[in-house]
Amino acid sequence: MTETAQTIHDMLQRLELFSSCSDDFLTKISSAAHLTTKPKGHMLFIHEDQADYFYLVKSGWVKIFRETLDGDQAIVDIFTNGHILGETSIFQDDIYPYSAETVEPSELVQLPLSMLKDEIETNPKFAMAMLSSMARYRKQQDQELEHRTLQNAPQRIGCFLLRLTDQSQSGGPVRIHLPYDKTLVASRLGMQPETFSRALKKLKQETGIEVKGSTIETDSLDRLVRYSCAACTSEFPCKDLETESG
Amino acid sequence: MTETAQTIHDMLQRLELFSSCSDDFLTKISSAAHLTTKPKGHMLFIHEDQADYFYLVKSGWVKIFRETLDGDQAIVDIFTNGHILGETSIFQDDIYPYSAETVEPSELVQLPLSMLKDEIETNPKFAMAMLSSMARYRKQQDQELEHRTLQNAPQRIGCFLLRLTDQSQSGGPVRIHLPYDKTLVASRLGMQPETFSRALKKLKQETGIEVKGSTIETDSLDRLVRYSCAACTSEFPCKDLETESG
Repeated sequence: MTETAQTIHDMLQRLELFSSCSDDFLTKISSAAHLTTKPKGHMLFIHEDQADYFYLVKSGWVKIFRETLDGDQAIVDIFTNGHILGETSIFQDDIYPYSAETVEPSELVQLPLSMLKDEIETNPKFAMAMLSSMARYRKQQDQELEHRTLQNAPQRIGCFLLRLTDQSQSGGPVRIHLPYDKTLVASRLGMQPETFSRALKKLKQETGIEVKGSTIETDSLDRLVRYSCAACTSEFPCKDLETESG
Repeated sequence: MTETAQTIHDMLQRLELFSSCSDDFLTKISSAAHLTTKPKGHMLFIHEDQADYFYLVKSGWVKIFRETLDGDQAIVDIFTNGHILGETSIFQDDIYPYSAETVEPSELVQLPLSMLKDEIETNPKFAMAMLSSMARYRKQQDQELEHRTLQNAPQRIGCFLLRLTDQSQSGGPVRIHLPYDKTLVASRLGMQPETFSRALKKLKQETGIEVKGSTIETDSLDRLVRYSCAACTSEFPCKDLETESG
């Protein structure tokens, strides 16, 4: 195995999704994979194109989105390291269900979908892992939908910030770095930039957080949790944060 | 096989999800199933309870939802005949991912989850069918999220109405019956009742539809399509309407 293939093999091995796969399979798919570095703004694939590859994010950020007839963009999600994307194409006639574009310089592993399909068809444990991963992601999406209905805009920003923190740490001051620029955070949350600005201001008043550029500081997460999580159907800490699938 | 078991067997056989299952399996699971009739307002199962059964709706309407700490209810979806619910519990430690309650008198088939799990583990084609079904549902959810961002309230009602019609019929006058009361339609769309009323009024002005109680009439779907589908990332007719999973 080449050094790159070994790196990819080790990355895959660390993902829960691939924990039921044999070393043989991981070696085979890693050897067929490519590791690439892409600048910000690179299109990985386009909605409804023929799908031959899925991707694993090694570093950086990739947005997945669709476009309306009116030309508006709907961001489905934004993924970072450890997340895979494009893999559900194999259940949808090998057609990408969304477009994917880097929003920061990113390192990506490109892997053949055909091998993933073979593994699902021959390894029932892997099929089950794939189903679990999809069920987890589905619950996240349900929650996102709920938040659009039940949380106000400041609460949604609070929720977004809380999901960026290490939720296992209790008490004490916390510093949160926005992973990408505020305009993109607004789009990710389905808000107009002006709504986002007003909502962030309100969140500061309600929870005492301090915003310095793309850094948010607070003495403790408590007020943020009390303010945002009251309008959520799950409890803090969020149980779903270990999901990998995209 | 009893007459009831035969009825259930025939219902399952008609679902795309079960098309790869052997007749043996369908007979076995149908014989272990129960057909029940429940009044409006009956709780089938509760979010985070231990899951032993999944359900197939034979007639009526069932809402699936979660509750926030504040006591608000978030409706995830509302299902009618041919839809199954609770089946994803087997990928989530046998815990129901949502609550389910009838919103109209309903006939339901109760089926053991353990047999479904066995079939996934031993029949790779069924595992694949399950993955396809979840991928389809996921795309629907993505779309729902998009609509909350991109469509205004009248467009969302228009979209809801269009999804109730036989989209294969072209041109000509159409009559649409609301499947359940307007308050519930509003909740399903994540709207306050007042917002719903205002939005329905606006939709009438924009598209010329006529609203008579729970019946909506229009000379043709064209204006409704032009108005609502412009702010959607898919085209009319909707490709995802054949999904069964819940």
